[in-house]
Amino acid sequence: MREADELLEHFQVPDDIAVRVKPANLRSTIEQVFQKMGIPKEDAVTAADVLMFADLKGVDTHGVSNMLRAYVQGYNEKRLNPRPKMRIVKETETTAVVDGDGGLGIITCPQAMDIAIEKARKYGMGAVTIRNSGHAGAVGYHAMMAAKQDMIGWAMTAGGNAMVPTFGAEPRLGTNPIAFSAPASKEPFFLFDAATTTIAGNKIGLLRRLGRPLEPGWVSHPDGTPDMRGGQEPEFAAGSVRYQLPLGSTRELGSHKGFSLAVIVDILCGVLSGAAGFDRADRSRRGHFVAAYRIDAFVPIDEFKKNMDGFLRTLRETRPAPGHDRVVYAGLSEYETEQKRSKLGIPLHPEVIEWFKGACAELGIPFTLTTK
Amino acid sequence: MREADELLEHFQVPDDIAVRVKPANLRSTIEQVFQKMGIPKEDAVTAADVLMFADLKGVDTHGVSNMLRAYVQGYNEKRLNPRPKMRIVKETETTAVVDGDGGLGIITCPQAMDIAIEKARKYGMGAVTIRNSGHAGAVGYHAMMAAKQDMIGWAMTAGGNAMVPTFGAEPRLGTNPIAFSAPASKEPFFLFDAATTTIAGNKIGLLRRLGRPLEPGWVSHPDGTPDMRGGQEPEFAAGSVRYQLPLGSTRELGSHKGFSLAVIVDILCGVLSGAAGFDRADRSRRGHFVAAYRIDAFVPIDEFKKNMDGFLRTLRETRPAPGHDRVVYAGLSEYETEQKRSKLGIPLHPEVIEWFKGACAELGIPFTLTTK
Repeated sequence: MREADELLEHFQVPDDIAVRVKPANLRSTIEQVFQKMGIPKEDAVTAADVLMFADLKGVDTHGVSNMLRAYVQGYNEKRLNPRPKMRIVKETETTAVVDGDGGLGIITCPQAMDIAIEKARKYGMGAVTIRNSGHAGAVGYHAMMAAKQDMIGWAMTAGGNAMVPTFGAEPRLGTNPIAFSAPASKEPFFLFDAATTTIAGNKIGLLRRLGRPLEPGWVSHPDGTPDMRGGQEPEFAAGSVRYQLPLGSTRELGSHKGFSLAVIVDILCGVLSGAAGFDRADRSRRGHFVAAYRIDAFVPIDEFKKNMDGFLRTLRETRPAPGHDRVVYAGLSEYETEQKRSKLGIPLHPEVIEWFKGACAELGIPFTLTTK
Repeated sequence: MREADELLEHFQVPDDIAVRVKPANLRSTIEQVFQKMGIPKEDAVTAADVLMFADLKGVDTHGVSNMLRAYVQGYNEKRLNPRPKMRIVKETETTAVVDGDGGLGIITCPQAMDIAIEKARKYGMGAVTIRNSGHAGAVGYHAMMAAKQDMIGWAMTAGGNAMVPTFGAEPRLGTNPIAFSAPASKEPFFLFDAATTTIAGNKIGLLRRLGRPLEPGWVSHPDGTPDMRGGQEPEFAAGSVRYQLPLGSTRELGSHKGFSLAVIVDILCGVLSGAAGFDRADRSRRGHFVAAYRIDAFVPIDEFKKNMDGFLRTLRETRPAPGHDRVVYAGLSEYETEQKRSKLGIPLHPEVIEWFKGACAELGIPFTLTTK
């Protein structure tokens, strides 16, 4: 077994208990769930596409298992607005600030990226910041929207207090993921999407569900000291993902860099969107940022893609270190997982299947996930 | 002594052997050295300003001690063009690709950032990629140029084969630093500038000169396996900084993220500039990227700076972990060092003073560094 895949699968449901469902059935079920929440068809299709993107690519932390329940709960508790009137607060040739009117981020972010792409098409670059919007989902989705249009795509989301800054004893920043995508021709697209903590917040929840321990360097002790021994779990009670360490784990290993990357995400998503709460680092807050750079504003697109092919291929073909059988660039494993899952189905934990069964019954949606 | 400062000073000349020189004298000497290389006055002033920025802020790895010698050597060996004709290869409202005509990056990058700033002033955003250009110096300088103009600034430089990818056994990417700056009002500007390896390449050279060992997690063994024990130095013969680990050090700690950030830098600086060599990851190559986003294209500048003040202050005021006395955000220590060095002088290693003495004699420049 390949090591890189093994690590990816560390966060996936073990094969022996997974129930594989047909992508088309899962997609249709998600769309119907969102529509039952009062969301217009078109937006429900977008939201389902963002979740399916994660589930197909093996980013299970951001797929239906972890997120759909939370979204449904958000709508049920009226914390999310199913029919937001998105509003452009301010706009220039290349920039916009969008008020999401309390809608879910997996719906507002793609709409914001559409604006950024349109601006980049006209002027070469486009960037949109989003305030007053819910969870952004797998931000790689939004970045890849631009890459599919022959552009460089950036997407970030900020908020929460999950990360303890280098030398700090209180959580101050979110896991603040950064996504970046660029197209290639023969090679799968480069697609980076990662938390600026050592590990995504949702992954801790997933590990808890799978009964697996935390690695050294992922979290701090309650006093802020990095835990470099690992294995602990106790303070991570349900719903809590506080005290995660920045990428780099300790100052000596570069945690000030992970910490700073998270600050950059807060600045772009929050301070630059005028979202509430970003005048302090110790409050609950949320904002998003998306940007697109049109590639042929710089170099011919065919030349760019050809060079990307060579660049990514030679990375992939780097001689591996002992115990490993290849080097993978970001987006490669995810692409392979998507190919596999499109054919073989998406593996879900039986608990998740049960949740769908209950939700479908309650909402009056036909349950088709375990249909052969 | 404060821990954060201690780490910063880990890379600085020890006080007991340092010779403190007056900033004005050092600046004037650097300007004259560059002019003796055949560089026009205006460009020499820029180049000196970039080096002084590093030396004043305590970024000694990118100041005169490490870099000036290398630049002088580059001019003497005709690898650098002292009078380049910079040329815009392609341009749109917001973007440009610049050919640096073999000039030094610390001169071409500020010129490119001027173009990006001008475009952002007109259209909200600007980005310039630079090919055919030498070493970019401390890229934080270029990012901060935008911040001083009330913009968000990005600057990156790619090239070389210093970083071994996650699971790889051969170096494929440079240390590929990313800089980002954003202004505040009362607080020192946020200014991030860091290699995507765990440590900047030049720092290894500086540690060698200071006779200090490497930390665990900074480099790999020759077979690509991360060295998590530390202390080694042998394979880092003069001039060689191969086999550095990506930020994150090991896959479990997130090295795939540092690796991917380096890939992003290669894509933006190289593939997007059409610079030679970026069609493969295993060759010598160099390119730069700078971008500016005009803040008031998004939110009023006063509101932005006020929110930055509160955000950065509350980060700084985070309760510290045991053994530390404060949390520092990127740019804060550097600002404090600049205040201190502006008054007390810039500490240089006696070896560096000797080099200046010799260089001044050879080039016919008055030696004023140790003048009281």
